[in-house]
Amino acid sequence: MALKLLDERNEIWLFDCGEGTQHQILRTTIRPRKITKIFITHNHGDHIFGLPGFLASRANQGGTEPLTIYGPKGIEDFVRTSLKVTQTRLSYRLKFEVLKPGVVLDDKTFTVTCDHLDHRIEAFGFRIAEKDHEGELLIDKVREAGIPAGPAYSRLKAGETVTLADGRTFNGQDFIGPAQHGRTVAIFGDTRQTQSELALAKDADVLVHESTFAGEEARMAKQYYHSTNVQAARLAKQAGVHRLLLNHISARYVGKMARDLEKEARKIFANTRVVADLNEFDIPFIKTHAEDTDDNDQ
Amino acid sequence: MALKLLDERNEIWLFDCGEGTQHQILRTTIRPRKITKIFITHNHGDHIFGLPGFLASRANQGGTEPLTIYGPKGIEDFVRTSLKVTQTRLSYRLKFEVLKPGVVLDDKTFTVTCDHLDHRIEAFGFRIAEKDHEGELLIDKVREAGIPAGPAYSRLKAGETVTLADGRTFNGQDFIGPAQHGRTVAIFGDTRQTQSELALAKDADVLVHESTFAGEEARMAKQYYHSTNVQAARLAKQAGVHRLLLNHISARYVGKMARDLEKEARKIFANTRVVADLNEFDIPFIKTHAEDTDDNDQ
Repeated sequence: MALKLLDERNEIWLFDCGEGTQHQILRTTIRPRKITKIFITHNHGDHIFGLPGFLASRANQGGTEPLTIYGPKGIEDFVRTSLKVTQTRLSYRLKFEVLKPGVVLDDKTFTVTCDHLDHRIEAFGFRIAEKDHEGELLIDKVREAGIPAGPAYSRLKAGETVTLADGRTFNGQDFIGPAQHGRTVAIFGDTRQTQSELALAKDADVLVHESTFAGEEARMAKQYYHSTNVQAARLAKQAGVHRLLLNHISARYVGKMARDLEKEARKIFANTRVVADLNEFDIPFIKTHAEDTDDNDQ
Repeated sequence: MALKLLDERNEIWLFDCGEGTQHQILRTTIRPRKITKIFITHNHGDHIFGLPGFLASRANQGGTEPLTIYGPKGIEDFVRTSLKVTQTRLSYRLKFEVLKPGVVLDDKTFTVTCDHLDHRIEAFGFRIAEKDHEGELLIDKVREAGIPAGPAYSRLKAGETVTLADGRTFNGQDFIGPAQHGRTVAIFGDTRQTQSELALAKDADVLVHESTFAGEEARMAKQYYHSTNVQAARLAKQAGVHRLLLNHISARYVGKMARDLEKEARKIFANTRVVADLNEFDIPFIKTHAEDTDDNDQ
């Protein structure tokens, strides 16, 4: 899974890196050197065996930007051994961060937190929360007011009160559009139903959740530490997410059966999609502070 | 590369196991549990990164037959670490044999030898030699002679002289077809031109040789420890092989350029093919002991 943050920070973040990821990337517009962070949900082979090959090909393609891998204990041993045995020298700095529940990173534009899920092996779910965007300066309105271009514009945008040379005074707050809530994506790896899912997914714009089994296989899902489509849909509804993307469908569900998984989930949570390799989804801004106010008024 | 020995020993042998091998196998008739030996030419990522995933999926598919990996020092560390970190428990016994020049295995049907090639990392070429097949009992000729079915048949097949109850005597040698020379395949990994290639390839039915570069790039080939199509073709000719299969073509040669690589090699050694993923080739018996005699008569 690739979270494309090109507009937001000129970066792409990967979540897990199964065997063949470097080959699938060739079928997309993704440039490996743009991938600066890789988050690993758990150290099972189908989620990490593409890592050494991806790292090596990123170097072969001239990547020099540092890359950080956030994952459970053990991932560094796997990667370092793979690079050592193959005598691979990377052209960039590779850093590892061992995950523990809480804040994984927090900077000007994003906060990433994680918590344990419930799989046969230590497993994590991630909550990637964009910081709120400030409102834009309403340039047409500024011009209509006859305010001359210049340093006043940036002071207005900062929300300050500005007095012009001609004596007129303007309040910046009147010239700023609504602020936008940052978007939130919850990306989970393999898990069976567990308490921690709710907080991680709460009010997310998008929840990416595994759906190894169909609704009637709840017992099997529990036994194998996996989830059903119905369990994921119930969680999406309870957490109040906007959209649910189901992945990690068992190979037993092919063709019509996979579409049935989607139908069944939609009965519980309408905005559900079963995703396939190379699918891409936009995450539009759907909430503004202005809307918050409206909500409160109702 | 898979050497299918289903008729010969109900086994398949893999040579190298790059990333995605387990997925490509799904596009063939190969059953992973039939793969009992994997030979690794060298520990570069594009030749080994599919190994952990293949081993795990072989177990998932219920493989219980032991599997041996023959490879350079280091391959066991890579595989064991991958299995440990992913907590993968295999359902079969996994054995490792560290390669050194000489006989790798020798049993009733095959002898495999290897020698060092010349790559940036320790690298091997393999010579897989089938033992000669004894001649078949010519059953029509036996019947024409009026020999009654029974234990006499197996004694004739063993070449013994048989005296029947009616007093007639037959020499088994007269009822046995020509013995067949075992077939020999030489499979090399990445290498630049080197002395040891000739003995490994000598008189092979098939030589599988890398052809990273075109003929005019001999300097680049040497610099990067690889071979050109022309170098491989010259070797094939000098070694007296029957057929040359070129693989490991650099990604710079696409479409017509790849076909030109083949054309250029054929000017030197006519029976040359540039191979692609999923191509399959039969290796017919082309030499019998009877033919040996003919050759000597000429």
